[in-house]
Amino acid sequence: MADVKVGIVGLGLMGGSLSLALKKLPQDYYFIGLDHNALHCTQALSLGLIDEIAPSLEALRSCDIIFLSIPVDGIIAVAKQLGTLDPKCTVIDLGSTKEKISLSIPSEIRKNFVTAHPMTGTEKFGPTAALEDLYTDKVIVLCDIEKSGKHQENVAKTLFSDIGMSIVCMGAKEHDRHAAFISHMPHALSYALANSVLKQEDSQSIVALAGGGFKDMSRIAKSSPNMWEDIFKQNKDNVLEAIQTFQSELKKCQKMVENEEWDTLNDWMSEANTLHDIL
Amino acid sequence: MADVKVGIVGLGLMGGSLSLALKKLPQDYYFIGLDHNALHCTQALSLGLIDEIAPSLEALRSCDIIFLSIPVDGIIAVAKQLGTLDPKCTVIDLGSTKEKISLSIPSEIRKNFVTAHPMTGTEKFGPTAALEDLYTDKVIVLCDIEKSGKHQENVAKTLFSDIGMSIVCMGAKEHDRHAAFISHMPHALSYALANSVLKQEDSQSIVALAGGGFKDMSRIAKSSPNMWEDIFKQNKDNVLEAIQTFQSELKKCQKMVENEEWDTLNDWMSEANTLHDIL
Repeated sequence: MADVKVGIVGLGLMGGSLSLALKKLPQDYYFIGLDHNALHCTQALSLGLIDEIAPSLEALRSCDIIFLSIPVDGIIAVAKQLGTLDPKCTVIDLGSTKEKISLSIPSEIRKNFVTAHPMTGTEKFGPTAALEDLYTDKVIVLCDIEKSGKHQENVAKTLFSDIGMSIVCMGAKEHDRHAAFISHMPHALSYALANSVLKQEDSQSIVALAGGGFKDMSRIAKSSPNMWEDIFKQNKDNVLEAIQTFQSELKKCQKMVENEEWDTLNDWMSEANTLHDIL
Repeated sequence: MADVKVGIVGLGLMGGSLSLALKKLPQDYYFIGLDHNALHCTQALSLGLIDEIAPSLEALRSCDIIFLSIPVDGIIAVAKQLGTLDPKCTVIDLGSTKEKISLSIPSEIRKNFVTAHPMTGTEKFGPTAALEDLYTDKVIVLCDIEKSGKHQENVAKTLFSDIGMSIVCMGAKEHDRHAAFISHMPHALSYALANSVLKQEDSQSIVALAGGGFKDMSRIAKSSPNMWEDIFKQNKDNVLEAIQTFQSELKKCQKMVENEEWDTLNDWMSEANTLHDIL
């Protein structure tokens, strides 16, 4: 088999981990990487995540597959700069919001695109954060897949399934609302939790007592502000709806504690326990 | 060395894991267990967590060490039923709130008591949830230790340090405020997060997209409602203060998204990132 030429725009956790995952497959790949951060380029090269640093976006246009693993605003900008592409070229973006991306791809290359959201990540970033099993046994959501070419759909489905992912297809609009509840709003909570504790006078001695619960709940508060600013921007309405929903639930809890309605509080916590049945 | 006779009241995750941790030490221990749940007693016996089921609390009074690993209201009740104890007997309670417990121990046996809070746990409960490394490398807070006898203080410090814990001493009042921020309020958030998602019409398809962030943040929403009802009850004022503090932080985030104050939002997230420096 000839080498498949893969371009990766964005050599961070997501892009770097993709390279590591693809390298484990029997197919040979040749990776060309691009990142506006020069240090990340040289790190990615020396870590073996890429075989070559691309001098410009132009240099990636000959690739069989181009991954856009950059913040969502960047994806929209790059999509507009790509120009025309070979009908067999597949561009896969990994942004965490999908509707604005799906709508902003120029119509001449809409069939080249597959808009995907891998439901995985860590709070770490940069090429050194890359993990070879980041995608294994995780879900990838393919959005508005009917707008992609048949070839591109097959390339994406085969590739993600080969690296061990479960594929879920849904509309970009529906995805964005789901993602707000399952990922974006929880990130807002984690940031708010970290700040609640950090702003206490004795924050260091409070944090010294952290057990697994707090560590788990505050882990994603270490995530990249630039990436999350973009996500909150692009998914503003859904995020606000999800925060509002959460606030009503927390308010209920607060009232029950305030009014010492212990039985009702117990029922409310038992309802939350049923998450166990579906997760 | 003669066997040390250890009584465990409450054969769940915390009590069962203590037995497993102590069994790894060179000292020989003989474990007598008591639980109001008969199934948990037989399970603890067949899992080897205890050597004998106690017929009553009375049967534990001859123990060298008695652990109370039951919900906080139960600890207060048992402390009142213990009667007088041998001056060498050490009673260690593992409740998650400490001030009401510390104040309610009858004065005749106050020196026998060490009130401790191990900053560890999982969302699982019952003897089958016991883990031999639950306490390893975790923090244990000893509260109002000056009220314990010198012998009891030594027994507790040696034992917890032998099973690999870091010991932190503080007043019970201070502990309860700290614990509200680092553990109790985060549990309220996790329950509220789970309920926010579960109450959506399409909750199953939302949860199908759960990645590591949501899984981590909702894990403790699977915790025992009976145990947490008790904790919220006993630490009501501190929990309400911590929830209030969190709500103001989340409100800030909501307003910044609403008003599209992206730079300020970015700064707010960067502040949360500094948690990384101390945790």
